[in-house]
Amino acid sequence: MKKFVNDPQKYVPDMLKGIALANPDTLRYVPEYNLIMRADAPNDGKVSIIQGSGSGHEPAHVLTVGRGMLDGACPGDVFAAPPMDYVYETTKLLASPKGVLLLVNNYTGDRMAFDMAQEMSLADGVTVRTLFIDDDVSVQDSTYTVGRRGVAGNFFVMKAVGAASEAGADLDEVVRIGEKVNSVTRTMGLALTACTPPAKGSPLFELGDDEIEIGVGIHGEPGRRRAKIEPSDALVDELLEPVVADLPFERGDRVALMVNGLGGTPISELYIAYGHAHESLAAKGITVGRSYVGEYCTSLDMAGASITLVRLDDEIESLLAAPAEIGLRIF
Amino acid sequence: MKKFVNDPQKYVPDMLKGIALANPDTLRYVPEYNLIMRADAPNDGKVSIIQGSGSGHEPAHVLTVGRGMLDGACPGDVFAAPPMDYVYETTKLLASPKGVLLLVNNYTGDRMAFDMAQEMSLADGVTVRTLFIDDDVSVQDSTYTVGRRGVAGNFFVMKAVGAASEAGADLDEVVRIGEKVNSVTRTMGLALTACTPPAKGSPLFELGDDEIEIGVGIHGEPGRRRAKIEPSDALVDELLEPVVADLPFERGDRVALMVNGLGGTPISELYIAYGHAHESLAAKGITVGRSYVGEYCTSLDMAGASITLVRLDDEIESLLAAPAEIGLRIF
Repeated sequence: MKKFVNDPQKYVPDMLKGIALANPDTLRYVPEYNLIMRADAPNDGKVSIIQGSGSGHEPAHVLTVGRGMLDGACPGDVFAAPPMDYVYETTKLLASPKGVLLLVNNYTGDRMAFDMAQEMSLADGVTVRTLFIDDDVSVQDSTYTVGRRGVAGNFFVMKAVGAASEAGADLDEVVRIGEKVNSVTRTMGLALTACTPPAKGSPLFELGDDEIEIGVGIHGEPGRRRAKIEPSDALVDELLEPVVADLPFERGDRVALMVNGLGGTPISELYIAYGHAHESLAAKGITVGRSYVGEYCTSLDMAGASITLVRLDDEIESLLAAPAEIGLRIF
Repeated sequence: MKKFVNDPQKYVPDMLKGIALANPDTLRYVPEYNLIMRADAPNDGKVSIIQGSGSGHEPAHVLTVGRGMLDGACPGDVFAAPPMDYVYETTKLLASPKGVLLLVNNYTGDRMAFDMAQEMSLADGVTVRTLFIDDDVSVQDSTYTVGRRGVAGNFFVMKAVGAASEAGADLDEVVRIGEKVNSVTRTMGLALTACTPPAKGSPLFELGDDEIEIGVGIHGEPGRRRAKIEPSDALVDELLEPVVADLPFERGDRVALMVNGLGGTPISELYIAYGHAHESLAAKGITVGRSYVGEYCTSLDMAGASITLVRLDDEIESLLAAPAEIGLRIF
């Protein structure tokens, strides 16, 4: 294994320390709960938005904390749900009179931790609701999931509820918006290579030199099928067609299009994929209103990409366009 | 080779098309010269800033075009200097009454193309100057270079001259600022794996399962030595010590610290490296005033990272803090 890693058991705390040191003015790190939170949270004037998940998907979610996005993120170890008490303590720390919304990508372990934490927080008098995200069209049930998995499309739910809560929307309204965005968001991904979890030290699954996994999960879960590597345009079609057919997205729709890198694929390739996806949608009479290219939800060092579409209306588009600032930044 | 690539000969135009489609309001693509330019350039009220280089280093430079950064970027093929006529035509297209500044990372092929283009543009009556960037401390001369190589530190030169030109500085002043930033910027990188150029289809050089290349160039050029893989903190020390010693950076200095991913290393690992670099500098009495973690200058899908330090003063820090917008973005 060749990685920037010290003790694999310290992978997550070493990373969180780095994130905190790089964002001293805007983020606060609470090591006891793996918590990265806004330095100015909780804010009594807004619903607090929290997401947790396994680590290894960065920037999701510890790098998407900030104004107009998450108030806090409490990750577990690599590919492991956060412990229930981390979620519970985070919820209490970020409790606001306007309430707390817990965002959870749909995996059984995460649902369990967040359900229990919600119950305990409610018993403590915190107003808290939970919203599950399940945008992955590739399989119905999966290794760690009953129902569809939550993957890169969760970015759009975070962005929309983050903007709404920043504008002062109440909890019911924030939940309505989150459910609405999730209901019009669809994603599918493929792996060119397997990822290597630091504690395992070797690739998580076997993939031949000319093989790809179509519909792969962000923890390396199996997708729809193995296939031979193809030219980029054909790979994009393999992802775009099932995504378009699922909602379905139709002629006349205006969409957000995301090409998300899974960690090991350089951004040059993501733009090659983006160009073909954009033109293929245009040929179907679907207009790309907003574009997203880069890493939003990764799987450690896995080479590959996912494609997400969101059907836009004026409300969603204005929430996606609202200003936001997160730990992940360029300047 | 498993990549998102169609015909390898079309790698660059396919990527540029994607960049243009993703940024329809702010960028313009001129296919004849591989040119990505600001849609509102040239601007008579500012010096035009242009950088070109081989492709394969994205986001440098085609994704760093925008307000407060470059006015245009004209890349060559992967790891190949742009043709001289691309630079010449780009310079003419972006000519401004306030002049044009050509930024060039110090490689012999690039210098040749830009020197000739400058001469031809001057003959046409365009006011144009050239600034060479050579921040890599690892080796004196290299495979494609006489003198030091220009690598990820070029981001800081772009940012500073971009901000100064946006504020209306004249060409002499913009050149002064660029030279000043280059003179206080130092970088060194290491490779965990080799990269695979699309047209070659196989890794550019051989690196054993437990080997790393310390001081690697962004085209896979040899560095100082081969070594065995070490824990992240030790890898960071291998880069940070020579960088600090070179200027030298000293107790009491305030710096910008960049941990730049080379393309195949996930951002989680970059933050692990960042945390140790930040703390090591603090232990030397060097304060990190601005932090940069992510991909700024890559080498296709190479796993690895570089560390850059810039000695800050009030002038440089305010230029780095000025607002900017580029094709590479999150929201």
